[in-house]
Amino acid sequence: MAGLLDGVRKQLFELPRYETLGGRVLSGVRVGWESYGELNAERSNAILICHYFSGTSHAAGRYAPGDPLPGYWDAIIGPGKPIDTDRFFVLSSDTLINLNVHDPKVATTGPASIDPASGKPYGLDFPIVEIGDFVRVQRELVRSLGIEKLHAVAGPSMGGLQAFDWAVRFPEMVGRILPVICAGAADPWLVAWLDAWAAPIALDAQWNGGDYYGKAAPTAGLLQALKMVALHANDRPWALATFGTSPAAGGNPRAGLAQPFAIVDGLAQLAALRVALCDANHLLYLARANQLYVAGGADDLGAAMARVRAPVLYITTPTDHVFPPAATGATAAALRDSGARVRHLEIGGSFGHLNGLLTIGEAAEAIAAFMNDQPVAS
Amino acid sequence: MAGLLDGVRKQLFELPRYETLGGRVLSGVRVGWESYGELNAERSNAILICHYFSGTSHAAGRYAPGDPLPGYWDAIIGPGKPIDTDRFFVLSSDTLINLNVHDPKVATTGPASIDPASGKPYGLDFPIVEIGDFVRVQRELVRSLGIEKLHAVAGPSMGGLQAFDWAVRFPEMVGRILPVICAGAADPWLVAWLDAWAAPIALDAQWNGGDYYGKAAPTAGLLQALKMVALHANDRPWALATFGTSPAAGGNPRAGLAQPFAIVDGLAQLAALRVALCDANHLLYLARANQLYVAGGADDLGAAMARVRAPVLYITTPTDHVFPPAATGATAAALRDSGARVRHLEIGGSFGHLNGLLTIGEAAEAIAAFMNDQPVAS
Repeated sequence: MAGLLDGVRKQLFELPRYETLGGRVLSGVRVGWESYGELNAERSNAILICHYFSGTSHAAGRYAPGDPLPGYWDAIIGPGKPIDTDRFFVLSSDTLINLNVHDPKVATTGPASIDPASGKPYGLDFPIVEIGDFVRVQRELVRSLGIEKLHAVAGPSMGGLQAFDWAVRFPEMVGRILPVICAGAADPWLVAWLDAWAAPIALDAQWNGGDYYGKAAPTAGLLQALKMVALHANDRPWALATFGTSPAAGGNPRAGLAQPFAIVDGLAQLAALRVALCDANHLLYLARANQLYVAGGADDLGAAMARVRAPVLYITTPTDHVFPPAATGATAAALRDSGARVRHLEIGGSFGHLNGLLTIGEAAEAIAAFMNDQPVAS
Repeated sequence: MAGLLDGVRKQLFELPRYETLGGRVLSGVRVGWESYGELNAERSNAILICHYFSGTSHAAGRYAPGDPLPGYWDAIIGPGKPIDTDRFFVLSSDTLINLNVHDPKVATTGPASIDPASGKPYGLDFPIVEIGDFVRVQRELVRSLGIEKLHAVAGPSMGGLQAFDWAVRFPEMVGRILPVICAGAADPWLVAWLDAWAAPIALDAQWNGGDYYGKAAPTAGLLQALKMVALHANDRPWALATFGTSPAAGGNPRAGLAQPFAIVDGLAQLAALRVALCDANHLLYLARANQLYVAGGADDLGAAMARVRAPVLYITTPTDHVFPPAATGATAAALRDSGARVRHLEIGGSFGHLNGLLTIGEAAEAIAAFMNDQPVAS
């Protein structure tokens, strides 16, 4: 059946000059990328995968046989899988302002990068960038490989925001899109939640207005932000299956405020594993990029979805607290109203928003059919 | 039709000695209370109202004619209203560790109170208290008025936790209960969210391990905690109706991280109005009391609900993010499994959890029938 992708190799794309949507010119922009499968002679078989808020380009396979986990969408990307690397050249890149600055496999450009003009990290002098900036940098990467049209653009969560943005911004370059657990635009409810993710960082005195490079980083604030993201992206059945039904399981929280509950301790332990890899300012910039999002920079959701020409397989999950059914339903309705060729599919699972990573296999047949140009029913 | 309650008078109840469920003895415990309507000669017409997490005893009426708002459940408490003060003596008390320490109308005992033994505020030396402690202090208040049996105990959210706790802990004293937007026990999912409410406070350097009395209080952390509570307790339709559908409405958030979005600014302004009235340590202790909750101190939800003898009118709302349908459904099922006389009613609204305050009028007929002993259908 489906084979393995081993020995995935991380590569580096450099752009000497990039002007942001906001009009700032950045020199020496770098983003990492990796690929699975082979580009054909016509360069017509490329699928671009875009990553989620706290993710990296590592969408499938293993860098080395001993890696504990494969890339996040390994269930659907690989030889013989729905996004079939025997047939497609699957390309995945780190975004600008990627969160995992200190992951040796990640290359990105953001507030933690050295500003060539000063020789010091940008910090809050880095310009606000948008999802559309991620996409415009990806486009330069794609064209540097001689690819003028992508067979598909796909991604979960913030990756799905990029897929919609590609379809609106560069319709001539996109054959089809697979946006998963996302929407066609942010709205004030999402804006407020992204603020709740980010706010703990600015409360940490070590954040110091964003100027902490070379000093103690705001690790306590970053830890709480990562706990918040992990909680909001999950769901109650996961919590009860993992930590039981008793609120006080596994601890002695009657003994004093400092005594943790099992689930709080569990979230903190998972977050602690990530703090050393992440940069707090990058999280703030990522929150802002997501807050500002309307696909393609259109005026509103309706205007954005009216510009989608590519067929869409839109996959959401009804227990998503980040992109709840009312938000994904509004996106699906806007697509249908605009006459887009859209199939809206819901997947299940115990993990809320994270179903888009952890139970994406439920949609395997639909994804395979969509990528192979078989009929798409509404 | 329904008349007005004006000139509501706040009163003070003092308990010279109270031993907590955890075994700590507190001297000079004080809680505020108020009442509407008259106690009858038999002292049989008393209804106790218990308040929510960030609330006070001010459930109905106005202290003075110029008050901008009446008490939080004024829609259902008053002359001719479903909880009819022409017929019932309605009593409402501040809890222990009430959040609104600096509200001149609130009296409570908690970490901000002076420890008689030291002459200084308790701070984190205050013992962990539970919802059951709130109820046991209320029981002393009720008995001090010569009341041996309450016609009903009612309340929204944390007030509903108290109503369930009363029914389990003191079944002989409770004629019926009206728990609203709540559950019969906390679970790990709720525990984690309560941690998310509280965590910003400990990130504020001015929190200083809880020792900030007489110094600068952790107002930035408290403000973010209050923003978090307000967001989690509301819902997306409110956000879009109030702030529009454009994510960047009303601000210039592309200009820099410090530029706010309208909804974030709105939540911050509302929270700022409350910061000066609230105490940060009290919020931490309230979160802990709610996290520890199983009604009546039972082993688990099923054991707790099996001990409910009083008829129950249980009102929830399907868009509640604090007590979501899976949690309220588990409580309703446990009540039914135990053979309790329960009617489970759902109300609508655009405000999520806050529907239990803002659209409680939808349940007016059911509440009136329940209080007047008319038949309760399942």
